[in-house]
Amino acid sequence: DPNLKIFTLNSNRPLAEEIAKVVGVELGKCSVAQFSDGEIQINIEESIRGCDVYIIQSTSLPVNEHLMELLIMVDALKRASARTINIVMPYYGYARQDRKARAREPITAKLVANLLETAGATRVITLDLHAPQIQGFFDIPIDHLMGVPILAEYFKKKLKGEDVVIVSPDHGGVTRARKLAERLKAPIAIIDKRRPRPNVAEVMNIVGNIEGKTAVLIDDIIDTAGTITLAANALIENGAREVYASCTHPVLSGPAIERIDNSNIKELVVTNTILLPEEKKIEKIVELSVAPLIGEAIIRVHEDQSVSTLFD
Amino acid sequence: DPNLKIFTLNSNRPLAEEIAKVVGVELGKCSVAQFSDGEIQINIEESIRGCDVYIIQSTSLPVNEHLMELLIMVDALKRASARTINIVMPYYGYARQDRKARAREPITAKLVANLLETAGATRVITLDLHAPQIQGFFDIPIDHLMGVPILAEYFKKKLKGEDVVIVSPDHGGVTRARKLAERLKAPIAIIDKRRPRPNVAEVMNIVGNIEGKTAVLIDDIIDTAGTITLAANALIENGAREVYASCTHPVLSGPAIERIDNSNIKELVVTNTILLPEEKKIEKIVELSVAPLIGEAIIRVHEDQSVSTLFD
Ligand SMILES: Nc1ncnc2c1ncn2[C@@H]1O[C@H](COP(=O)(O)O)[C@@H](O)[C@H]1O
Ligand SMILES: Nc1ncnc2c1ncn2[C@@H]1O[C@H](COP(=O)(O)O)[C@@H](O)[C@H]1O
Repeated sequence: DPNLKIFTLNSNRPLAEEIAKVVGVELGKCSVAQFSDGEIQINIEESIRGCDVYIIQSTSLPVNEHLMELLIMVDALKRASARTINIVMPYYGYARQDRKARAREPITAKLVANLLETAGATRVITLDLHAPQIQGFFDIPIDHLMGVPILAEYFKKKLKGEDVVIVSPDHGGVTRARKLAERLKAPIAIIDKRRPRPNVAEVMNIVGNIEGKTAVLIDDIIDTAGTITLAANALIENGAREVYASCTHPVLSGPAIERIDNSNIKELVVTNTILLPEEKKIEKIVELSVAPLIGEAIIRVHEDQSVSTLFD
Repeated sequence: DPNLKIFTLNSNRPLAEEIAKVVGVELGKCSVAQFSDGEIQINIEESIRGCDVYIIQSTSLPVNEHLMELLIMVDALKRASARTINIVMPYYGYARQDRKARAREPITAKLVANLLETAGATRVITLDLHAPQIQGFFDIPIDHLMGVPILAEYFKKKLKGEDVVIVSPDHGGVTRARKLAERLKAPIAIIDKRRPRPNVAEVMNIVGNIEGKTAVLIDDIIDTAGTITLAANALIENGAREVYASCTHPVLSGPAIERIDNSNIKELVVTNTILLPEEKKIEKIVELSVAPLIGEAIIRVHEDQSVSTLFD
């Protein structure tokens, strides 16, 4: 369909190339550069009048740069008479600022939703939001895809015949762990951090049976990797045979890579929603592609079909 | 008035300190930092409920970072029940992207206006917009201050008794040159760049009499300093005695400092709307403060008085 156009900005070109292949189109021609003073300069180099445009952009580090690229691109597409402007954000930055945890905090995840709508987005396709409530921050349609089936496929093969337990590294992630566990027909366990008294180190209580089992930790985001590596230690200390870790969004900032490399984690399985720079591609990390999932979602959205059956 | 609060973000703290002194208040307490993954973290550390809040922030390099700080701060203030949220942008970034010069260009200056309003700004105070039409991009009140009187005061003293001509470096800047010339009771001249044929170097024609005079070039923004240093050369070659240059907003990106240092320009007079990092503070550059002007504007806005008489 010549009316279906996919453009990419700068956050994750390899993923965008893959997605375009799945959909069966060439990436649209546009340049996204900077003027000498750091202002973003976007040139769309082909007509998109009357087209359904999909823009691939994760708002990963540098998040503010990537978000502004996206907003400016949407503005340009709107003024160039695109019919629909569909934002494909494999990783939605600022998702952790989704509520006022303390007085006078911003709710930046909602601000981002407002900014995208103001710029002119007509739909958002994203993956594993930190909180599913962020869907409600939008007044335009949002398709919320799940990375769990991709991780499940991998572990099903990898851990075939092993005695597996899926572990949530904190009580907030139990629903996610349940989803993976169902697909692997495995039980779950939960790490329940407790501080016995103020100013005393946290104790890692493990709820559930992990003894002698292959434990698979799962989270949505691994950022500095503090939580996940401490969890892995606790699992090994408490008798787990081996520990795998997994997440959809490998933010991996600050000390993350060093921590993972030095940890008890045997393998960290992630998806490519966030592009890993070369220096973060250590041997322990296995990358799975979300391109087939996102590509299929784009095809369905474009044909006005439901994307929810993608997860059956 | 305890209901008047001034906060600063990270783009120009020294200017904000000065402005607060002029207004006679302490800067509000807030921290503007980054999480490990580069996301902006803002904590407002005092109550602002029911207050009239002024936020000082220039969207200078790194422009996208500074703009997001501003948007997130406005969001936080809105949710913390500020009565009014007044954005003081001494320098308005992206102002040069104020129209579609070619097909499929964004109009980022308008996008920025929409983003600020969406976040919750109720008023904007700014200085020497690249195009005064940008005022019309807002649906909230905007106070548009002028740097010319500050530059005029300086040159009046500095060039007392000299035979001065004010020069616009291009035909787009004639109105600005006129304003400075009127205040100095000096004539104007214009540099009229023409390309005689395609692929032939531009010729600098000088319209007006500059022979033996002290020429003062004026522009709103000096960015890479290409235009202004070529203009200075042309003026000296055509018989000007000396060349001064001036602008409100010293963007000074890329080769700017080197070009200015190696140019015929005797002195470059700028304002402090944009913070000059130490390495850009060369001897030729004289900085004038806009703090008295902006401070007075804040006082007047807060007392519901007109700011336009500031320029009589
Ligand atoms: N980029 C970030 N890095 C670390 N912490 C964050 C970030 N963004 C928000 N937060 C904080 O993380 C908390 C939310 O995390 P969670 O409890 O996992 O939903 C809130 O208190 C936020 O202030
Ligand atoms: N940050 C920037 N640096 C250099 N040129 C820019 C910048 N932003 C916009 N422009 C371009 O500058 C032109 C407007 O400049 P002017 O003719 O001086 O108003 C437009 O063609 C813009 O595409």
